[in-house]
Amino acid sequence: MTPLDMEETGAPICQCAPAAPGPRARPAGRAPLGLERVRIRPESLLGRWQERNASKTIPHCIGQLEASGVMNNFRRVIGESGAPYRGFVFADSDLYKVIEAVAWEIARSGTHRFDSWLDDAVALIARVQEPTGYLHTWIQGVAPSRRFAELDRNHEMYVLGHLIQAAVALDRAAGREDLLQVAIRFAALVDRRFGPGREEGIPGHPEVETALIELYRHTGQARWLRLAEHLVNQRGRDILPGEGFGRRYYQDHRPVRDAVDPTGHAVRQLYLNAGVTDLYLETGEELLHEVMREQWDRAHERKMYLSGAFGSRHRDESFGNDYELPADRAYAETCATIADLQWTWRMLLAGEDRRYADVMERELFNALAAAVDEGGTRFFYSNPMQRRPDRFSEENAPAERQPWYACACCPPNIARTIAQAGAYVASVLEVADGPVLELHQLVACDIGLPDALGGGTLAVRTDYPADGEISLHVNGPALPLGSAVRVRIPAWAEGVTLRAADRQRSVTDAERARGYVVIPADDVDGAFLQLPLRARWTAANHRVDAVRGAVALERGPILYCLEQADLPEGVAVDDVYLPEPPTAIELPPAAAAPAPSLRIGVKVRETENPLYRPATWGARVAASRRVEVDLVPFSTWGNRGPGAMRVWIPTA
Amino acid sequence: MTPLDMEETGAPICQCAPAAPGPRARPAGRAPLGLERVRIRPESLLGRWQERNASKTIPHCIGQLEASGVMNNFRRVIGESGAPYRGFVFADSDLYKVIEAVAWEIARSGTHRFDSWLDDAVALIARVQEPTGYLHTWIQGVAPSRRFAELDRNHEMYVLGHLIQAAVALDRAAGREDLLQVAIRFAALVDRRFGPGREEGIPGHPEVETALIELYRHTGQARWLRLAEHLVNQRGRDILPGEGFGRRYYQDHRPVRDAVDPTGHAVRQLYLNAGVTDLYLETGEELLHEVMREQWDRAHERKMYLSGAFGSRHRDESFGNDYELPADRAYAETCATIADLQWTWRMLLAGEDRRYADVMERELFNALAAAVDEGGTRFFYSNPMQRRPDRFSEENAPAERQPWYACACCPPNIARTIAQAGAYVASVLEVADGPVLELHQLVACDIGLPDALGGGTLAVRTDYPADGEISLHVNGPALPLGSAVRVRIPAWAEGVTLRAADRQRSVTDAERARGYVVIPADDVDGAFLQLPLRARWTAANHRVDAVRGAVALERGPILYCLEQADLPEGVAVDDVYLPEPPTAIELPPAAAAPAPSLRIGVKVRETENPLYRPATWGARVAASRRVEVDLVPFSTWGNRGPGAMRVWIPTA
Repeated sequence: MTPLDMEETGAPICQCAPAAPGPRARPAGRAPLGLERVRIRPESLLGRWQERNASKTIPHCIGQLEASGVMNNFRRVIGESGAPYRGFVFADSDLYKVIEAVAWEIARSGTHRFDSWLDDAVALIARVQEPTGYLHTWIQGVAPSRRFAELDRNHEMYVLGHLIQAAVALDRAAGREDLLQVAIRFAALVDRRFGPGREEGIPGHPEVETALIELYRHTGQARWLRLAEHLVNQRGRDILPGEGFGRRYYQDHRPVRDAVDPTGHAVRQLYLNAGVTDLYLETGEELLHEVMREQWDRAHERKMYLSGAFGSRHRDESFGNDYELPADRAYAETCATIADLQWTWRMLLAGEDRRYADVMERELFNALAAAVDEGGTRFFYSNPMQRRPDRFSEENAPAERQPWYACACCPPNIARTIAQAGAYVASVLEVADGPVLELHQLVACDIGLPDALGGGTLAVRTDYPADGEISLHVNGPALPLGSAVRVRIPAWAEGVTLRAADRQRSVTDAERARGYVVIPADDVDGAFLQLPLRARWTAANHRVDAVRGAVALERGPILYCLEQADLPEGVAVDDVYLPEPPTAIELPPAAAAPAPSLRIGVKVRETENPLYRPATWGARVAASRRVEVDLVPFSTWGNRGPGAMRVWIPTA
Repeated sequence: MTPLDMEETGAPICQCAPAAPGPRARPAGRAPLGLERVRIRPESLLGRWQERNASKTIPHCIGQLEASGVMNNFRRVIGESGAPYRGFVFADSDLYKVIEAVAWEIARSGTHRFDSWLDDAVALIARVQEPTGYLHTWIQGVAPSRRFAELDRNHEMYVLGHLIQAAVALDRAAGREDLLQVAIRFAALVDRRFGPGREEGIPGHPEVETALIELYRHTGQARWLRLAEHLVNQRGRDILPGEGFGRRYYQDHRPVRDAVDPTGHAVRQLYLNAGVTDLYLETGEELLHEVMREQWDRAHERKMYLSGAFGSRHRDESFGNDYELPADRAYAETCATIADLQWTWRMLLAGEDRRYADVMERELFNALAAAVDEGGTRFFYSNPMQRRPDRFSEENAPAERQPWYACACCPPNIARTIAQAGAYVASVLEVADGPVLELHQLVACDIGLPDALGGGTLAVRTDYPADGEISLHVNGPALPLGSAVRVRIPAWAEGVTLRAADRQRSVTDAERARGYVVIPADDVDGAFLQLPLRARWTAANHRVDAVRGAVALERGPILYCLEQADLPEGVAVDDVYLPEPPTAIELPPAAAAPAPSLRIGVKVRETENPLYRPATWGARVAASRRVEVDLVPFSTWGNRGPGAMRVWIPTA
């Protein structure tokens, strides 16, 4: 008997906070706050990104939906366009992700600028849906005989997942149910056909699982949770054909409760894990949490790039083996980082681990930020950590950010993620003494406190990550006695001090180890944290062959890189090395966004060596000269045109 | 006007030595000796491999031609089998390569054991050929409407190339012309359709170019040389569709005379280069030689694995960028090493460079030798330089050698190459003073000297590469005055001494730099060379990020590796490092084939580190212990079952 069998009442198990991308967690007593309660300040780094997302990225995506043929793919099914079908079989999901982005943007800013586009898009989708509920423009318009016939590749359930997410977002953000009714009709068709006791079938590309659980949270209808659990339970039972890249590719090689290794196509694994963790959050089935914890550790301690990216191989867009993290050959798909953000946020809600919020910060400011140009309308699909001078795009990875892709999963995924970034900032934890507001991301924001926390506003003010000073203020009613605010202390932060109730103290080793400092209710107003933002050199585990003998520069959560554009004429990026120990790192006086560039002294090899030569021991580099060079945030690389780049700088 | 236009006489330009895989070179005055003149001694390393090739590999291949369906693919076209077509569209070439292997084996050993199989196979091929000359069992039996319609992918000309090579070999080795007539009929059809002034068309997979030039050498008919040149000239003119991996993939991105970078699918590029170099050898067009020299340098000084393998990427089986040589992710296809052997042999015939024969030796004893198991019936398609403990075959590369492959290009390619290995041992150079016999490979053999060199036999005796002593003896007539023997001195060889005419001397720096020591006619008999075979550690260029901070062990031409099987319980290959400077290398008393294992002292890390951590400078490894371990020749890795392996050992 599964936990679900005990709850077949049809009644809602929990009512999720409106506009929250994550669930209200039962097992851990931790709940998300919801988008409408967290207002990121527009002058902050994340806030500026949200503004650019609203003014540039979302309108660009809407334009590209027309230009790439996605809108016509819908229109042609009902005779409103004579254009041929364009794009991959899952191109409908591009539209759904853009609708979701628009929905979260409405929730964030209250904008009405997309209303008429939304009206048209939702009406078009509704017209295309068949009376049965079926809705997939490639099957309907190109290959009707293959309906539900190739679940491994035609991605009907994947597309349904994105439809559900868009529909739930739109209802939460704008209170419009029209798309939700469309989504429910399609979901009901899938449930009737592939639900418990019906035909065997699971999606080749997981995504619908987490979406169905959100639909369950939103509607309170247990059938969606049961369908999600059924799809999870069937995995690893040889249901998919296993052709091509094999069963590992789509995580059908092993039952979910036995799959502790992150395997195969990285985005599929990570979306699946978001759904599996959601399942734990709603059912409390401990085995799922155990497996997810083990897999989270393996993914993040053996298979994560320093930028917070995942996926070492282009060929099957897959995780590599443990410690296989080549900088130049990284696939590092933008969507994998987004999927990991979703999964890790759910892991954070499910249990306490200081690493969860640290990883999310690493992902947001590095891998994900690098995927968009400074104008907000060009994107990387693949985010390598090194670009060689002679590279050409043999591996699905253009040298420059592109306005769109034939497989355009990433750009609208960025748009929906940034629009809802506020939801990842804080949560509320219920403990015996009273509720605790947890501040996971150190971002300037105003947080509308729930009644249990007094109902006032917590104002967080900081220039972080450019600067490490953070102040807290409570406006309106004071926090009730017994409640508290917990603020994350990142793993890299040394010498952090807290001034509260006019007392200044160092953050203790125990607090650093736990990863959070607790400020009691009375001390929150006027509390002031200082995180020294020292630049630091980071090395990788000795098993990461790809970056042996090299180090990377970080400052706070910001990862740096060396670009050809910052080197003198005639000096190649790949001939630069770092003297050992390295010279001091200078902070230039003018601090640019998103973080200051950092000046370091490096050496440049001046001899040409053969490909292979006798090894020498303890010898100095024969001929070199010293140059000063500015390293720039990895997230800004390539903004000055294509060129060689490297994150990992060799040592002598 | 091309050089060819000046020679449109229809008369043979040169008469190639029978059974020589390479041509008689005109521009350089260097000619191959031909298989029947070089008898590798059966007790030598190469000789034992040839014996195993004859007794195990070739019979295994013949069996696999039945088991894999290749023979039935022929039979079904003429109603002699009801089996469905099996394999890739170019599977006919498997049969042709096996016939070629059998032919060279007949030339080498005079065997008759394959005669009846040959009779049946050749008769079957002849029956399947259409009256037009057309012969391609996939088109004929599966997709007749696509005849010559998709030159980029159906590989009709590639298959023709292998048919020609098999037919020429069979005529040279066994004096049978039946297959040659079949090949000529198909070649004539291609010439009529795609020859000069006819329809545009080039093969997506080069190979036919070098084959056509061999056909020209064998028959003396200039039309084959003209057709080969025409196919070369058309490349880089957007004739192929450029779909999928793009024009670079099949070297149609740039005219051959302008293509100095090795690019795209490695086997295609390297076969093409063999053909282009053949074209230079026959036409003397200097520009071709210049381009080939530049491309050879770039291939071998920027893109070659230390084993002599090529191809850094699985996805499109391609060269990577310069210095992109990941050990674990190496594609390193066996056929790419074979194609490079063919090209480099032709470069050696075309011009003097000490590196050519060095590279061929590196390839034969390492990348190619590793592709076959000790039993001669299991093969690697991909030859990485590192195997991680948790690897699984996501990248076309099984963990163990396989008896055959769905794409079975490699096994029969090995068989034909080893059967003709004698042809790569020596050549004759015409210089003003008289002919010079050049001994490129230091292998125990008997060389039948041409009349210009006295007509006797040069007996080379050595246990090389296990041992560095080489003696020369002339049996029969003495070498004529003015003639000489040149013996290659490998680049790694230091302290080489020559005893000749009872005088012992060191090989001079000038001789080492030239790569050959010259022994005048009178001194050849009884000459004795000693090459000290010291084990040595090799490092890579600093731009090879993948192996920074690591070294590889070599002794003579033999590359070594560390296998899990040789480590104590509980010690992982990837936790081993080398103290700096390393301890002395011990040669165990019992020297095994193909070379002794070498015992070294290494250290083992005993702490578990996080994936990323603050860099430390000049710190010692926190906890380690010392173990002794035997490194084994890379060519033997995996013979004791699958397991972790690495060629490049990290230093402290």
